[in-house]
Amino acid sequence: MSPVHAPQNSVADGPALEDVTLLIFGASGDLTARKLIPALFQLWRKGFLSDRAAIIGVARREKSDDEFRNEMQAAVASDQQDEWQRFAQLLFYREADLSDEEHAARLRDAVEEIERRRNLTGQRVVYLATAPDLFLPSVEALSTAGMIPRGPDKERLRVVVEKPFGHDLASAQELTASLSRLLSEQQIYRIDHYLGKETVQNILLFRFGNAIFEPLFNRTHVDHVQITVAESQGMERGRGGYYDRSGALRDVLQNHVLQLLCLVSMEPPALFRGDYIRDEKLKVLQALRPGREDGSIDDWAVRGQYAAGQVDGERAVAYLDEDRIPAGSRRETYVAMEVQIDNWRWAGVPFYLRTGKRLPQRVSEIAIQFKRPPLNLFTTVECEGNLCKMVETRPNTLIFRIQPHESISLAISTKRPGMQYQVHPVEMDMEYHDAFDIEIPEAYERLLLDVMRGDSTLFTRSDELEAAWQFVTPVLEAWEASDEAPELYASGTWGPKGSEQLIRRSGRAWRRPGSDPKSK
Amino acid sequence: MSPVHAPQNSVADGPALEDVTLLIFGASGDLTARKLIPALFQLWRKGFLSDRAAIIGVARREKSDDEFRNEMQAAVASDQQDEWQRFAQLLFYREADLSDEEHAARLRDAVEEIERRRNLTGQRVVYLATAPDLFLPSVEALSTAGMIPRGPDKERLRVVVEKPFGHDLASAQELTASLSRLLSEQQIYRIDHYLGKETVQNILLFRFGNAIFEPLFNRTHVDHVQITVAESQGMERGRGGYYDRSGALRDVLQNHVLQLLCLVSMEPPALFRGDYIRDEKLKVLQALRPGREDGSIDDWAVRGQYAAGQVDGERAVAYLDEDRIPAGSRRETYVAMEVQIDNWRWAGVPFYLRTGKRLPQRVSEIAIQFKRPPLNLFTTVECEGNLCKMVETRPNTLIFRIQPHESISLAISTKRPGMQYQVHPVEMDMEYHDAFDIEIPEAYERLLLDVMRGDSTLFTRSDELEAAWQFVTPVLEAWEASDEAPELYASGTWGPKGSEQLIRRSGRAWRRPGSDPKSK
Repeated sequence: MSPVHAPQNSVADGPALEDVTLLIFGASGDLTARKLIPALFQLWRKGFLSDRAAIIGVARREKSDDEFRNEMQAAVASDQQDEWQRFAQLLFYREADLSDEEHAARLRDAVEEIERRRNLTGQRVVYLATAPDLFLPSVEALSTAGMIPRGPDKERLRVVVEKPFGHDLASAQELTASLSRLLSEQQIYRIDHYLGKETVQNILLFRFGNAIFEPLFNRTHVDHVQITVAESQGMERGRGGYYDRSGALRDVLQNHVLQLLCLVSMEPPALFRGDYIRDEKLKVLQALRPGREDGSIDDWAVRGQYAAGQVDGERAVAYLDEDRIPAGSRRETYVAMEVQIDNWRWAGVPFYLRTGKRLPQRVSEIAIQFKRPPLNLFTTVECEGNLCKMVETRPNTLIFRIQPHESISLAISTKRPGMQYQVHPVEMDMEYHDAFDIEIPEAYERLLLDVMRGDSTLFTRSDELEAAWQFVTPVLEAWEASDEAPELYASGTWGPKGSEQLIRRSGRAWRRPGSDPKSK
Repeated sequence: MSPVHAPQNSVADGPALEDVTLLIFGASGDLTARKLIPALFQLWRKGFLSDRAAIIGVARREKSDDEFRNEMQAAVASDQQDEWQRFAQLLFYREADLSDEEHAARLRDAVEEIERRRNLTGQRVVYLATAPDLFLPSVEALSTAGMIPRGPDKERLRVVVEKPFGHDLASAQELTASLSRLLSEQQIYRIDHYLGKETVQNILLFRFGNAIFEPLFNRTHVDHVQITVAESQGMERGRGGYYDRSGALRDVLQNHVLQLLCLVSMEPPALFRGDYIRDEKLKVLQALRPGREDGSIDDWAVRGQYAAGQVDGERAVAYLDEDRIPAGSRRETYVAMEVQIDNWRWAGVPFYLRTGKRLPQRVSEIAIQFKRPPLNLFTTVECEGNLCKMVETRPNTLIFRIQPHESISLAISTKRPGMQYQVHPVEMDMEYHDAFDIEIPEAYERLLLDVMRGDSTLFTRSDELEAAWQFVTPVLEAWEASDEAPELYASGTWGPKGSEQLIRRSGRAWRRPGSDPKSK
């Protein structure tokens, strides 16, 4: 837990970060080269990680330390080559097939030998960057090799589990049960890299660090909330097979979108501490209900699959024509849902969630749309130069934009200068890159540092995860049991027609992120 | 009354503006050349005033139309000389000593002759830009000359009265009573040029055109309000004599500052119409109370007088050394007050008002400071580059900046990017000049147009004015009866020490406008 009064760049109580061993299982994978090593390099550059620390890549392939270092150097592509040379001394590689007991024992010896040489006796973090079916075998191998400390030393080991954590409620519960026989909940860090993003972390600071927004965040003042996680890309090279077993609901909505929902709607925690915050998030998930409870799932959840189209000016193939997608797949690449949070604060306020691939742009945002003024005293106009047209009053909207440009903005109405009392919509903005001339850390930097210093605030607890699975599993099952194919939408559009109907039914409309009327 | 759904640049119901005669009494004065004629020129350029309209300057001095036109041209100093030549054809000059009955009759004939020639039968507006002691004689001259229409035609004449309207409660009441024997309240337009400023008009649109601010504008959420009207200049050339009979309380606080107070604190009107708005403003003034009611005036009102000093890098002389200031004058050039509005919405919320001359900068603003978050979950830091220091949480503040740069900004707390949960104060801004690429009209343009189209929203009604005088007159009388001199403050400082004590007593502090921590 990071102390509330920590000075800038200081680290938390507990083992100092100069004394840490990080093992990356699945080190040949994409994540290691693309995210983990660059993040660790930055942490080291910024002084969070000392020269004594050890980062040990582990995978089946045979490879020398130098080969591993060279591969990683190419991946980081840093213009700080001098620095890289120093950082590379922290990197090691050991091959191991963790299903083999002997390999596990050899790995243990190798790790201990590196630690002895570098005089490391502190934290050991094992990062499971492997395929999901290796999560449990990896931890079992740690156990077999005697690498899971017991008794008062237990906390020396922390294990980071990448997503997906389970495939549905039953498999998530099973994985939790199996892991918990070997590790305590405090040792397990389930990562959701969305929570490492600055704007996501800012949601709570913004809500509870200001006095004026919290009184407005409730059913009295909020008309509805929209959460959008849109991707413009289709299948990344080689990922089609994985994606087709997963889909938009599992891959994004169940974790990222529901986490955003929790952060924007949860009650203030008693203290700003990991477990207190996760208790509040859990309460939101427990209160989650379908947007329409009397009918079928189709009344509140919509799925789609992208057809061919045009994205970013380039031709995009249909999902079914992507590499490694089985013929006739009914996998959804788009989900939209209307949900409600059945508690004192939010009852009756619809939350509209959507995520999809091959949408017109990559954008993630939370938009809290407030109710309109009770009395419309003024004419609202929108103008191009002197050409004005009357429009409907635009409601105030608070927007947390998470990517691509992290910002917070507030859509308000002001007087259009001139001789009439005309209202014109404008935005008050706070863009991170304008407001702060310091570098915004990458999500993985923050999350890796938090694991090493033992701050679990930004990680998902097993009960949270199960509550999220509990909510989405009936939808998953209904869709997977259905003979119907998902509704098609052209690549480069905002999803299937059904998603428009979903929200239009209540007289509302999806936002078109990025097309907000900038004042001019 | 301007209709709610008027299209851009349209004018109100009633006589069209191509059919208007404007008489300016006191046309030799500064106001005519500096404000009125430039404003009328702009109105004409923008199409609000037709080529048929007549603008007739009236004063004692002998002058031809051409001489008047040339003087005005020099004053406007326009680079639109072609346009000016066309506009100049609207200008006329007639000399008249209005205390002389014969002059008045001659003026009437001259006006009628100009109107006949130009086929003008519409609105007549008489603008009293004279010395205050000529307001009543001017209207009496109109009456003598038979220029005040009666019966259904009555509304053809409107009279604009410049400030000061009265010198205290008794004189204001007397002037109202005298004028009301000759004119109806609907014919009298008491001008306060502050109300013509865009940001001032925007206060109401901002409050009632958005749904999210009104729930916060009350004693539950507001800690206190500060209204500042600061001038950096001392006595303008030749104005010392007038100012010494008036002072900061009469000249600025009684009108501009109390009007701002009304706009920021009034209840929403039933409709956005002149009289409904003025009803609500009146209710605020009727509920106005001293900030401390149990003691003497000194407990809640502070006066000061500037001594020599330095303003804008230049040496400034003491008030007593200014031109035309009587030796030993005890006239205040600075006032600060703590007041309260004793109603359901505002009870217990202090409003701090201040105005003065020779302060460090010219700035007018209203700052609504909200209460702090009930629980301080985070560390607040302010940073220069990587050097951060811990500071007290800054409360949210909404600032309407009226001059010099019209803007609305909201001071909020956000997460400082980085590895800690640190809060950093930033501002969300909406600057008029950035948000709108259209020209912001001068206050007098708006106000003159409103008189001509009969919209009284931005003018002060007699009951409002009396309520304002009622509140300040006891203070005026106490100070004028006192043998003590006002506390001195050096030119270029933010006022006397007493003003600091006034606000510090409640643990608060005056803002330093312009020194807000811009995020960096």
